[in-house]
Amino acid sequence: MFVEVALTAQEIPTYPIQDKSVVVIDVLRATSAMITALVNGCRAVIPVRDLDRAWAIKEKAEVLLGGERHCVKIPGFDFGNSPLEYKRERVQGRKIVFCTTNGTLALVNSQEARVLALGAFLNAKAIAPFLVEKQNPVLLACAGTRGEFTLEDFLAAGCIIHQLKNLGASLELSDKAVAAHGLYLTYKDNLHEALLLGRHGKRLSHLGFGEDVAYCAQTNLFPVVPIYRKGRITLA
Amino acid sequence: MFVEVALTAQEIPTYPIQDKSVVVIDVLRATSAMITALVNGCRAVIPVRDLDRAWAIKEKAEVLLGGERHCVKIPGFDFGNSPLEYKRERVQGRKIVFCTTNGTLALVNSQEARVLALGAFLNAKAIAPFLVEKQNPVLLACAGTRGEFTLEDFLAAGCIIHQLKNLGASLELSDKAVAAHGLYLTYKDNLHEALLLGRHGKRLSHLGFGEDVAYCAQTNLFPVVPIYRKGRITLA
Repeated sequence: MFVEVALTAQEIPTYPIQDKSVVVIDVLRATSAMITALVNGCRAVIPVRDLDRAWAIKEKAEVLLGGERHCVKIPGFDFGNSPLEYKRERVQGRKIVFCTTNGTLALVNSQEARVLALGAFLNAKAIAPFLVEKQNPVLLACAGTRGEFTLEDFLAAGCIIHQLKNLGASLELSDKAVAAHGLYLTYKDNLHEALLLGRHGKRLSHLGFGEDVAYCAQTNLFPVVPIYRKGRITLA
Repeated sequence: MFVEVALTAQEIPTYPIQDKSVVVIDVLRATSAMITALVNGCRAVIPVRDLDRAWAIKEKAEVLLGGERHCVKIPGFDFGNSPLEYKRERVQGRKIVFCTTNGTLALVNSQEARVLALGAFLNAKAIAPFLVEKQNPVLLACAGTRGEFTLEDFLAAGCIIHQLKNLGASLELSDKAVAAHGLYLTYKDNLHEALLLGRHGKRLSHLGFGEDVAYCAQTNLFPVVPIYRKGRITLA
């Protein structure tokens, strides 16, 4: 199984993905938050790129609004981008329109994929057998931050590759995939510490979201694979 | 000291470099070959982007020609891209015009740097104190391959960061720099093996240049820092 890694949402369109399983990764914090919401009973997440689209959906349907701009909750929205806000009592049975800077763009740019899943440390172990079962070539699509490489997404790509290796899957890794896996091996027992070495982890801590960073650094908390299909994300 | 990493020659122009020390890295094999030639007494390396320019210089001056296209020696040239060809008896006291696909482009794209040096595993230990002495912010500029990330250059960037840390330098690392260093920590005792995990290392081995890969994986063989200035590379 061929495994390659895209470093940013903007890089995704440079890969042919029609035949691929694509896993969009935005550890801090979009995919971690979406995974948490779905685990807590949210019926569907609807990712959108801009605020106008979020408000337009809200006008026509009974949905909650979640998301951020520059790490901060959008005025009038029900949730920010913190996974810890998406508690069962607030999300169970509800649909959530989700508007974030990078994670949503990565999803939009991956829509042509044969299979499109959401990954983070929280569900890395569940992603691996799912990919093996599909048997498509794999693109681990890091969202990055405004077109820039982010440490935590690359590290999570490495974590997923590690889980694939643990399954004994026969892998052909691109250079970036080898690098992501090698990086993960250095930090696998200190992921929280590693996330705090990254610009985004530092920034979130500085803004008072240190608890989010610690939460998102946990591996294999949830055995779920969220799938994007026809504009909605639900559990596989 | 701020340290960041560019992943490809094409990415270098996205960084402001006028105030920086830039280290161009093309492990397989341009910078490894240039370092070897200079260590063996070559007076100067003149990097050029295209064959026409190489032949034009050759017409007017007494120079040797080195370089490759698609990993293979250019017809009529004195040397290919294999560092092992640049032996003392052939290069001492000579000037060499060097034409390669990626390494030369990385140098050309880095010309505006305050200081421009050449790095590889072969001289990683010498690069670190040189950078500390200059005290400029640092860009480790991986050449990559035709616009794509290559494992070996990123790993060598990680090696240089490791040497900087060993010197006790106070470093502020970009996300890519943290990743390169983390990758290096995984493979620091098995660099040859690591290079053979990369696409380029595999390809060179397949083409019969396996000895080059082993040679270029050696760290700290030469205590030299080649410097690019006004179109020529000489030892600092």
